[in-house]
Amino acid sequence: MSSRPFRFDVSRRALVSALALFPTLAALRPVPLWAQTDALPSWNDGGTKQAILSFVATVTREGSADFVPPSERIATFDNDGTLWVEQPIPVQLAFALDRVKEMAPRHPEWKDKQPFKAALEGDIATLAAWGDHALVELVMATHAGMTTEDFQKIVVDWFAAARDPRFKRPYTELAYRPMVELLAYLRTNGFKTFIVSGGGIEFMRPWTERVYGVRPEQVVGSSIKTRFQMRDGRPELFRLPEVNFIDDKAGKPVGINEFIGRRPIAAFGNSDGDLEMLQWTTMSAGARLGLIVHHTDARREYAYDRNVTLGRLDKALDAAAMNKWVVVDMKNDWKRIFAFD
Amino acid sequence: MSSRPFRFDVSRRALVSALALFPTLAALRPVPLWAQTDALPSWNDGGTKQAILSFVATVTREGSADFVPPSERIATFDNDGTLWVEQPIPVQLAFALDRVKEMAPRHPEWKDKQPFKAALEGDIATLAAWGDHALVELVMATHAGMTTEDFQKIVVDWFAAARDPRFKRPYTELAYRPMVELLAYLRTNGFKTFIVSGGGIEFMRPWTERVYGVRPEQVVGSSIKTRFQMRDGRPELFRLPEVNFIDDKAGKPVGINEFIGRRPIAAFGNSDGDLEMLQWTTMSAGARLGLIVHHTDARREYAYDRNVTLGRLDKALDAAAMNKWVVVDMKNDWKRIFAFD
Repeated sequence: MSSRPFRFDVSRRALVSALALFPTLAALRPVPLWAQTDALPSWNDGGTKQAILSFVATVTREGSADFVPPSERIATFDNDGTLWVEQPIPVQLAFALDRVKEMAPRHPEWKDKQPFKAALEGDIATLAAWGDHALVELVMATHAGMTTEDFQKIVVDWFAAARDPRFKRPYTELAYRPMVELLAYLRTNGFKTFIVSGGGIEFMRPWTERVYGVRPEQVVGSSIKTRFQMRDGRPELFRLPEVNFIDDKAGKPVGINEFIGRRPIAAFGNSDGDLEMLQWTTMSAGARLGLIVHHTDARREYAYDRNVTLGRLDKALDAAAMNKWVVVDMKNDWKRIFAFD
Repeated sequence: MSSRPFRFDVSRRALVSALALFPTLAALRPVPLWAQTDALPSWNDGGTKQAILSFVATVTREGSADFVPPSERIATFDNDGTLWVEQPIPVQLAFALDRVKEMAPRHPEWKDKQPFKAALEGDIATLAAWGDHALVELVMATHAGMTTEDFQKIVVDWFAAARDPRFKRPYTELAYRPMVELLAYLRTNGFKTFIVSGGGIEFMRPWTERVYGVRPEQVVGSSIKTRFQMRDGRPELFRLPEVNFIDDKAGKPVGINEFIGRRPIAAFGNSDGDLEMLQWTTMSAGARLGLIVHHTDARREYAYDRNVTLGRLDKALDAAAMNKWVVVDMKNDWKRIFAFD
C-alpha cells in the first residue's frame, strides 16, 4: 500500500487536532474554504477547488438539510483519463498489445486476422476506429485461458517492467496527484471511494490500493466470464474468452447498482463513457457533485476532448454545462499533475 | 441500523482496554478461549465455539505465521438457512408467491401456465421439485418490470406486512442470534463481512444493514438484468425479466471473485449450494475456517439435511468431514436461536 494518501491523511488530521487546541481561530470565519485546509495542495485556489470543498462541507455538516450520513457518502471515479493517463493509448491496451506479441508464436493465424493483425503491426488508428466496445473485446480476448491467480501474476509482472513511452516511468506513477489527493480528502470526510471503470476489473485490482488507496472490493470494471473448477483436487477460477460485463456508458450505472447497491452522491469522469454515471449520480434530490476532468494541458500532459476517438469528451461536455457539473481545467486548476512533477 | 452488534462491539473493546491496564492477567493463560470473552453469548461452550475463537485468535495474532492483515480478513456468509430461517419455504419464495397472487389479475394466462399455476395454488411440492435454478428464475420473473427504486419500495412494504406462518413474526426477526453475534465478533476483529447468497441481491439489500450489520455494498447475490434509461428527463434503472447472474453452487466463488476480488479466509453455509464457496475458501494455504450450520433442532427451529429438496445438505456434509469444516449442531451448540427466544 502506498503511504502517500495516508501520509496526507495523517497531516490533515494533525492539522485538525492542532486547530482544536486553538478554538478562537474558528472565529475568523468566513474565509475561503481552501484557506482553512491543506487538503488539496496540488489544486490551485479558485472556483473548481472551492466547488469541491463547498460540496464536501455541505454534505458533512450535521443538522444541515443536505447532510448525508457517512454510510451513504458513495463517490465513484472513472479510471482512464480521470485518475491516470490514457494517452496516447489506454494503459490496458498497451498491456493487450504486449500480450498479443507475446502470445503470437502460438497463434500464427493472427498475422492475417483482425484485430490481431493491427495489434501486431501497432496500427492504433485501425484499432481506435472500432470504438470502445470492440476494443474492450480485443482486450478481453487476450486476457483469457488461465486461472485468475495466473492472470494476476501476469498483470503484476507486466506493471513491474512496462514503461510509459513519453514519461519513461512505470504506468502506476502516472496517477494524477490532484485526484489522489481528492480520493484521500473524500475518505477523510467519511466517503467510501469506488473506481467505476470501463477497464478490466482484474487488470486494476492488483494495484489500486497501493496507487489510489482503493481496495479491490471497491473496484467495479469490465470483466470476462470465469468458471469454477477443481483441478488435481484444488479449486480454481478459470478465465473464459467470453465477455461478462462492459462497465462503460449506460453500463456504468448498471454496474454501480449491481456492485454497490447505492446511488453515489459524487461522480468523477472525463469522457462520454462517464455521461450516464454522471447523470445517474447527479440528477436526483439532495446535494450532488458531478465533475469532469478536461484535458487542457498539452505541455504537462495532453490536450483533447471532441477531437479524439479513445477518451472522447463531447456529449458529456455539453451535459456538464446544462447540469452544472464542475469542469476541471487541468492546465489552470492543477498546480502539478504527477507526484514526480 | 440495529444497535445490537455495536453495543456488543463497544463492550468488548471496553473489556480489552480494561485488560490492558492489568497486564498481569494475561499471565493466567492458557484458559479456554470462551472463558476470556463474552463475544458469543448465544453459543454454548464446547468444541464448535472453541474452533471459531481459535481461528480468529490465530489469524489476528501479530507476528504469528498465520497472521492475516485486516484488509485480507474477508468472511462470506450464505443467507438462507445460514443467517435466517429458510423453512418451510425460503423467504424470497414466500415473497414471490405473494407477488404472483397480487399480479395475477393482470395475467389471466397464469392460471394454466407453470410455474405460475403451482404458485397460485400454493403447490410447493411441484415448485420444489424443479430445483433451485428454476425457482430462482420464477423469483426473477416476478421481480421485473419496474424501476429499482420501485422494487425497493415493494420489498420494504412487503417485509413490513408479512409474517412467518410458524413464528408469527416479521421475517427479519428470524435471523439467528448466534450468527448475528458471530458477524459482529468477526467485524470487531477486523474482518469485513459479506453475504454471498443465492437469493436476489435487491431483495436483501434493503434490510441487511439493519438486521446483520452488513451494508448493501457487501451483499452479493443473484440478479436480473437492469437497463439504464432516461424517462421524462430523469435517469432510472429498469428491471428486465432476464437472469443476469445466479449466485449459487459454482456461481458463489465466481460471484466472490467478481464482487470482492479477494479470496475469503472464512466461509459460512448450510447446504450443498455452499459447497463450492467452502472449497474455494478453505482449500488454500494459510489458516482457513469453513463452517456449516446443521439444522438439528426440530423443536426450536427445523431439523433437515439430506431429506429435503430446498436447502439440501448432502455432499457438503460429506465434504465437511473430509475438509475439517466446523459443523454447527444447532440443537446443542446454540443456547438460543432467535433474539426473541
